[in-house]
Amino acid sequence: MKYCPECGAPVELRLPQDDNRERHVCTACSTIHYENPKLIIGAIPEWDDGRILLCRRAIEPRHGLWTLPAGFMENGETTAEAAARETLEEANARVSIGELYSIHNLPYINQVHLFYRSRLLDLDFSPGIESLEVVLIGETQIPWEAIAFRTVKFTLQRYFSDRKKGSFHFFSSDLAHPAQIR
Amino acid sequence: MKYCPECGAPVELRLPQDDNRERHVCTACSTIHYENPKLIIGAIPEWDDGRILLCRRAIEPRHGLWTLPAGFMENGETTAEAAARETLEEANARVSIGELYSIHNLPYINQVHLFYRSRLLDLDFSPGIESLEVVLIGETQIPWEAIAFRTVKFTLQRYFSDRKKGSFHFFSSDLAHPAQIR
Repeated sequence: MKYCPECGAPVELRLPQDDNRERHVCTACSTIHYENPKLIIGAIPEWDDGRILLCRRAIEPRHGLWTLPAGFMENGETTAEAAARETLEEANARVSIGELYSIHNLPYINQVHLFYRSRLLDLDFSPGIESLEVVLIGETQIPWEAIAFRTVKFTLQRYFSDRKKGSFHFFSSDLAHPAQIR
Repeated sequence: MKYCPECGAPVELRLPQDDNRERHVCTACSTIHYENPKLIIGAIPEWDDGRILLCRRAIEPRHGLWTLPAGFMENGETTAEAAARETLEEANARVSIGELYSIHNLPYINQVHLFYRSRLLDLDFSPGIESLEVVLIGETQIPWEAIAFRTVKFTLQRYFSDRKKGSFHFFSSDLAHPAQIR
């Protein structure tokens, strides 16, 4: 941020009174502009036979790799509504959203990812504009080496493990920058 | 938003290509500025004897009313770190953060609230700059009519109910604007 979104004057990094972090503060109107993490919300759409709906990405990042339907939560919606909307947009698929299944912190990119268990309601799906293809896929066919995001991979791995055991348990993970993993 | 934070030129509401919502788009540099919900993270600090730490707010909104320590998640931290930081800032109190206990959607103000179970580690607490007073309080003394936020009230009510039953279960709620509740 270089200019104040409210008045257009330059902003500067400054420590506001009673604050402990530098913020972008307008040099003219003194408005303090906070920047906060964003929520990415996804669904784990399961069909009646146990197969999971995956999308192959038509956009960057990770063009060509596979993901669960997911994306940035929008203003004015709930987390569950975001999961259903993303599934509709990316896979033209209708789901019934169930319980929250996983939360992942990615502090190095200021993101929090949530994934919801969900039931795919019919087989009338097709690629949305952000997807190259959309498939229903069984656990043994999952392209583990071509999954676009770690949070999707971890969520799917745990999902299949929990499903085998017969009960799902909400889990969380904190992810470091990939370059920091040893 | 009236001006582009990147170049200072006026923005206008426009439907970007391949999008389905109007966004603030810069009339000069064409940057699309997305606005997304914010996360508010709180802790439920319990002391060894079962009492809970509450703060009386020294700031608006809800000046003078009682709350669990909570606030906006910051860039560069995890959700659990946010809960611990807010407890330190508002109550000068150290906690061990446990499991995520509740998630609340408030789409009418573009917020998602999370609360974590936590153990208060010592009794060396005091009001932070945003608090008038900080107290340890038992269930029967909770000032239910003077709780600042519904998400805090619902979380505390469920917490005490679960605690009586001997097991805690993560729960979620979607809250409508107060004026829309009948």
